[in-house]
Amino acid sequence: MKKELRVAILGATGRVGQELLSVLEQRNFPVSELIALASARSANTFVEWKGKKIEVKEPTDEIFKNCDLVLASAGGSVSKEWGPRAVKQGCVFIDNSSTFRMDKDVPLIVPEVNAHELENHNGLIANPNCSTIQLVVVLKVLHELAGLKRVVVSTYQSVSGAGKEAIDELQAQTKEVLAGNEAKPEVFKRPIAFNLIPQIDVFSEDGYTFEEIKVINESRKILGIPELAITCTAVRVPVVVGHSESVTVDLEKKVSPAQVRESLANNEAIEVWDDWSKAHFPTPIDCAGKDPVYVGRIRKDTSSENGINLWVVADNLRIGAALNAVRIAEYLLSHDLMETKKVLA
Amino acid sequence: MKKELRVAILGATGRVGQELLSVLEQRNFPVSELIALASARSANTFVEWKGKKIEVKEPTDEIFKNCDLVLASAGGSVSKEWGPRAVKQGCVFIDNSSTFRMDKDVPLIVPEVNAHELENHNGLIANPNCSTIQLVVVLKVLHELAGLKRVVVSTYQSVSGAGKEAIDELQAQTKEVLAGNEAKPEVFKRPIAFNLIPQIDVFSEDGYTFEEIKVINESRKILGIPELAITCTAVRVPVVVGHSESVTVDLEKKVSPAQVRESLANNEAIEVWDDWSKAHFPTPIDCAGKDPVYVGRIRKDTSSENGINLWVVADNLRIGAALNAVRIAEYLLSHDLMETKKVLA
Repeated sequence: MKKELRVAILGATGRVGQELLSVLEQRNFPVSELIALASARSANTFVEWKGKKIEVKEPTDEIFKNCDLVLASAGGSVSKEWGPRAVKQGCVFIDNSSTFRMDKDVPLIVPEVNAHELENHNGLIANPNCSTIQLVVVLKVLHELAGLKRVVVSTYQSVSGAGKEAIDELQAQTKEVLAGNEAKPEVFKRPIAFNLIPQIDVFSEDGYTFEEIKVINESRKILGIPELAITCTAVRVPVVVGHSESVTVDLEKKVSPAQVRESLANNEAIEVWDDWSKAHFPTPIDCAGKDPVYVGRIRKDTSSENGINLWVVADNLRIGAALNAVRIAEYLLSHDLMETKKVLA
Repeated sequence: MKKELRVAILGATGRVGQELLSVLEQRNFPVSELIALASARSANTFVEWKGKKIEVKEPTDEIFKNCDLVLASAGGSVSKEWGPRAVKQGCVFIDNSSTFRMDKDVPLIVPEVNAHELENHNGLIANPNCSTIQLVVVLKVLHELAGLKRVVVSTYQSVSGAGKEAIDELQAQTKEVLAGNEAKPEVFKRPIAFNLIPQIDVFSEDGYTFEEIKVINESRKILGIPELAITCTAVRVPVVVGHSESVTVDLEKKVSPAQVRESLANNEAIEVWDDWSKAHFPTPIDCAGKDPVYVGRIRKDTSSENGINLWVVADNLRIGAALNAVRIAEYLLSHDLMETKKVLA
């Protein structure tokens, strides 16, 4: 097992790329060389890491030949092209795009939920959608406690999920509206300042958005319950960082809110903030920049026999993307699963 | 039947009071005299109506003696004191507070749903909670179409539901945050600028907020289904006007999204905005200042056999308060139900 890795960040200048750099540093991930990669548009700029300036390059086969691990967050088309090429050069490629997530040969991993599926990886590993990750961390605990029967999710998703330009647009539009002018949508199709947009990603033929379909399909795959009864409504809200989810879960067995609270609190990845007598519950700004998945508002569902309602909040850039990817890499390292050349040979 | 009424607005200087004045004018409600009432704090100020300045007075029995109809939106304690006193003086008192809503002798009315219950009123009539009104207008149509089995609601509620000060707080906090300062919460317990607060109204012992309990209990009463399986999570969002709701409904019979769309579109109070191919759906700023309840994102629920998901948006100050109250008054007038003195004699 290599003790230190040559790590490439593909999409190093983007919002998640920046978060990847910061997470690698904070967690003291064993990096022998940090390689910053991005599309032609961002090549020849610099990113900072551990106080050093690193030049951003365009990806090449040669670069990947001298690299062990790629953490990619540069969009679906970039991953589609460079994922298989990087793996061919011997890299493990952990991809944040949706390209490979539903591919049956690619493990879709949330380490707290299904890390064991990494045993059989072929170099390509998919990082789930941000709103899926925080959800399945919680659902896994509930499933082990009392068996999942049905899940109904409504999301409240921050604009940072749509990239840097979306954050700029929220701020610019908000200033315009406060000045009495009209908001001019560009990144989003409708105004987002002081508004909500019940559409994330494009629509499919059945009226669901792809964001909703991702939550449904990816949750089923990660939890290993292909027939899980689950539905989702995904809504963009004028929040900068932090996705929130209102979740109603029907369980096979009857459990009390206190039992749910205890089981969730026992999970390392979760923090329970749930004391109604002190109005203690998570909000997005509490969670920005933090690692846990926060859960509050845990109570008996008044509409079903064995139902529980919860409110789940997490930093969509960290736990929802960068942190999950780095945790996958940490698991690979600690379980001696970094060797892909042999598999491909 | 009186052709024109002496109408008092109790709470005339508040956000809903102002909306009541505007709705009365726009709908050309037959007013012979407009009486503006408010607490001592606002007395001796003026409101404008039909281009005239009207002095705001404190309520007295004498004033109600010379008045036919009171539209009240001045908070629970004011209604509790003055509701019965106004009725004793012969007024019909349509109350926007939650004080009398669950009283079995007080009809709780959404005219499009249960206007017939006005037949037996005793002077006091309750206007439901804003988030309830837009929900039951839609649920009533679905119930008639295919029978309600279970309802799961997550709300996205604008700050105007918490009054003028809340709107000011959202704007002030937003300016502070944009200037790089911290948001200082006063009206809300937590920052609302670029944030969400999963608490509306105070908490009850079972972990539900009173806003959620209102949606549950009032929907059951208005729809006349005391055992309706319904649950609610109510969340404040940084939007000025317009409440949105993500609603999952299990129905007794299987119906298609197209059938649901058609039934809803046939209802006078509802506008269906639901063409995913054109990304056509309602958002709060589309609905502010408008009278209909808007419904979009109608699709088959992927988590249940006969389920439908919907997205419901309406102006919480109009349909959610002022317009509903005036429609109740219009129904009373057109059905010769304004005479309460006889009932009380």
